[in-house]
Amino acid sequence: MSNNDFNTRLFKHLDDHQKDYIQRLSDAVSIPSVSAWPEHRHEVVRMVDWTKSLLEKLGVKVELSDVGKQKIADGKEIDLPNVILGTYGNDKAKKTVLIYGHLDVQPAQVSDGWDTEPFVLTEKNGKLFGRGSTDDKGPVLSWLNVIEAYQQLNEPFPVNVKFCLESMEEYGSEGLEDLLKSLKNTFLSDVDFVVISDSYWLGKEKPCLQYGLRGICYFFLDVECSTKDLHSGCFGGTIHEAMTDLIALMSTLVDDQGHILIDGVYDEVAPLLPEEEQLYKPITFDTKAYCSEAGVEKTIQKEKEQILMHRWRYPSLSLHGIQGAFDGVGCKTVIPRHVIGKFSIRIVPNMKIATLEKLVEKHIQNIMKERKSPNKVSVKLEHGGDYWVADPNNPQYIAARKATVAVHGIEPDLTREGGSIPITLTFQEQTGKNVLLLPIGASDDGAHSQNEKFDIINYMNGMKVMGAYFQEIAKL
Amino acid sequence: MSNNDFNTRLFKHLDDHQKDYIQRLSDAVSIPSVSAWPEHRHEVVRMVDWTKSLLEKLGVKVELSDVGKQKIADGKEIDLPNVILGTYGNDKAKKTVLIYGHLDVQPAQVSDGWDTEPFVLTEKNGKLFGRGSTDDKGPVLSWLNVIEAYQQLNEPFPVNVKFCLESMEEYGSEGLEDLLKSLKNTFLSDVDFVVISDSYWLGKEKPCLQYGLRGICYFFLDVECSTKDLHSGCFGGTIHEAMTDLIALMSTLVDDQGHILIDGVYDEVAPLLPEEEQLYKPITFDTKAYCSEAGVEKTIQKEKEQILMHRWRYPSLSLHGIQGAFDGVGCKTVIPRHVIGKFSIRIVPNMKIATLEKLVEKHIQNIMKERKSPNKVSVKLEHGGDYWVADPNNPQYIAARKATVAVHGIEPDLTREGGSIPITLTFQEQTGKNVLLLPIGASDDGAHSQNEKFDIINYMNGMKVMGAYFQEIAKL
Ligand SMILES: [Zn+2]
Ligand SMILES: [Zn+2]
Ligand SMILES: [Zn+2]
Ligand SMILES: [Zn+2]
Repeated sequence: MSNNDFNTRLFKHLDDHQKDYIQRLSDAVSIPSVSAWPEHRHEVVRMVDWTKSLLEKLGVKVELSDVGKQKIADGKEIDLPNVILGTYGNDKAKKTVLIYGHLDVQPAQVSDGWDTEPFVLTEKNGKLFGRGSTDDKGPVLSWLNVIEAYQQLNEPFPVNVKFCLESMEEYGSEGLEDLLKSLKNTFLSDVDFVVISDSYWLGKEKPCLQYGLRGICYFFLDVECSTKDLHSGCFGGTIHEAMTDLIALMSTLVDDQGHILIDGVYDEVAPLLPEEEQLYKPITFDTKAYCSEAGVEKTIQKEKEQILMHRWRYPSLSLHGIQGAFDGVGCKTVIPRHVIGKFSIRIVPNMKIATLEKLVEKHIQNIMKERKSPNKVSVKLEHGGDYWVADPNNPQYIAARKATVAVHGIEPDLTREGGSIPITLTFQEQTGKNVLLLPIGASDDGAHSQNEKFDIINYMNGMKVMGAYFQEIAKL
Repeated sequence: MSNNDFNTRLFKHLDDHQKDYIQRLSDAVSIPSVSAWPEHRHEVVRMVDWTKSLLEKLGVKVELSDVGKQKIADGKEIDLPNVILGTYGNDKAKKTVLIYGHLDVQPAQVSDGWDTEPFVLTEKNGKLFGRGSTDDKGPVLSWLNVIEAYQQLNEPFPVNVKFCLESMEEYGSEGLEDLLKSLKNTFLSDVDFVVISDSYWLGKEKPCLQYGLRGICYFFLDVECSTKDLHSGCFGGTIHEAMTDLIALMSTLVDDQGHILIDGVYDEVAPLLPEEEQLYKPITFDTKAYCSEAGVEKTIQKEKEQILMHRWRYPSLSLHGIQGAFDGVGCKTVIPRHVIGKFSIRIVPNMKIATLEKLVEKHIQNIMKERKSPNKVSVKLEHGGDYWVADPNNPQYIAARKATVAVHGIEPDLTREGGSIPITLTFQEQTGKNVLLLPIGASDDGAHSQNEKFDIINYMNGMKVMGAYFQEIAKL
């Protein structure tokens, strides 16, 4: 039987079982597996156990990997949830695909502004509302539903699958990187491709594959003026206030066009070559929809290509806030003694974190040299995560493009993401293999917002693409 | 009997009863009358009742004045504590002195870093540690102890006294201004002088009288970029971020020498005339002690006179913080949608609040004209309080100077305060009479800090100055 014939059967089978898949997602969403709430840790564990049972029902060999403890408030420690390592098939003649996903969700409560109970999957106008529906329970279940469908159709599975399903993703993936490093020569050694479905389309209509992520360097800019907070009535006018220095320093970092003002920052940015520039032309991107999604009047750039390049392939600098200053409502006349400005720079090929760190330090030192201030000023890189970029012409991407055409009838856009999914790079480094980001949700799913949703059509088409993808991988 | 003879008897009597006065202060401090804690309101009421009993025991006619309700969280309302209006003596031949003070205290708990229980008055090395010891229970009791001493010595009291003792001072004196306005033609109509002991010496050794306070204009600088918070990975580089505008605007307000950069701000500041300049020369002020009190390495100005002038007679601008931005520990990659910069300008004679408001608005508008940003920016004067200044050669000041010499053997310094005590101006306006600030605590008492204390020597000498002051007032 040709693939096309099987696709027809598979897609019909999936369509026929839509209700079952919605019920399964409903069961998963009903477990409030919020990783950020330590008092909910038992729910996260329940979600891990629920998924383990489902995997085992499908014949997946499951190992629960203990990744240690998490420090919470007051010096207490609680267990991190186990990471699920699953193995499905072990045929040396077949390719092995590693699927990563996460079972934990962002916090949610009705009082945040939800129109429905966040942990009750609620169908309205073809949309499934609920926390975790699109991030990431829907995509994870899609993979499992596809395996089940192959089984119900008595179709031999075309590839070996490994699962790595964690449950701390929304709280920093604690323990995962170390685990993956320890698995390099065992669990990960025979992986041929890694695929991750934990991101979103660029718009609401057209599918895409993502081949790049920006990295991030998060800086703490620390200014201290005195050993205690001071009253601005008593001391204002005579003291070198920490906030005066901090605000002056922060104002030198970026201009009103989003241009970073730190000397040398753009030196290592990869030049825009004609073939890369060509990639942006065919991308479907509605700049008006982008504005309305962000809730802004207009963007800095006018053209589609320019907007996308500034999201994906140029660095940007955001001023996030200040720790230690007065942040409440109302009026407080404090001169804060110690303030920490928080800003981050999104980094892109071929910027080096170490270079950037030095440039930022030098910039701050240069500004302070010109200021007559005795205050203690320091800047430190609090966290650095590298950019990631894959070759969109890698065989795995070609396979996913064919699978997308088989379902949607159009080529997916080849896009990047402006944010970072740090584990992507870890998978690439620890397997040495190509990683594919295969989003199935729409841009307006609201992954971390109130009223998170997953469109039924995306759920269904997502499974179909995944089903076809496995066959395309088998042909490589 | 001459005053000097009576002073000798009075001072000895006070010295002989030191233990009683400490015990009385201990009783007052043991009532945790924290006005900022709604759940402690009954303790504030208990403090009012305790003081009422004491006043009545001394023969003061007391009226409790209901000043209405306070809105607290969740739309709830609770009763504001009554204001004590007391009348002691009604002899038309005598002058009438109105004494203001407050019975509420700042919040305090051991976990804030107190070395002793804040609501247990604890004597160590001649210091009485406890919340409210110096602010303002100590000074209030000093007035009452003096009245008691006159009675115990069978000495006719030289003046009529009125008391206005409130219990919301540490939380904005809600209700008091309206009350004073309503009392203008009744309770306040026959007042000759107002005296307030609710501030501190300039140093630890030398007494002072205060004749000026700076006012304050507190501004909210509001910038909005979008209808929701955005993720800097997704949107960074393409959006006019509110924080970029806000930080740029805030950086244009004040330079590294504390000079305000808003055009025209200094135009209305009273010129420094030679006779005013002379007032600064004799003041005892240890610039090193000032630095160590503030916990700073050095001040902006070097000379004593310059430091004092910049605290008292020149405006200053402090950047307090930002509401709506990320203010927590750690890293958060948010682009805040709506941020409010908080800054205040301390104002001095002859600055007008209305003028300043216009200058600030114009300044912000001018800066925004040069920025290419579509963001909504507005600045508003959230709160304006006028400066206050009295004539340090007014008869009441002369009287207090003589009383100080009688106790300390030296002339008090004539000083101002950099902060504001808004009620001072209200008393001056509603009585039309001279107001004297007569501090008795030392500069290191730590009124709003951990380990607030009141030195026994200041308690004792404070009462003596107060006792002598009444006699000097009677001679006017
Ligand atoms: Zn996710
Ligand atoms: Zn997420
Ligand atoms: Zn006070
Ligand atoms: Zn106070």
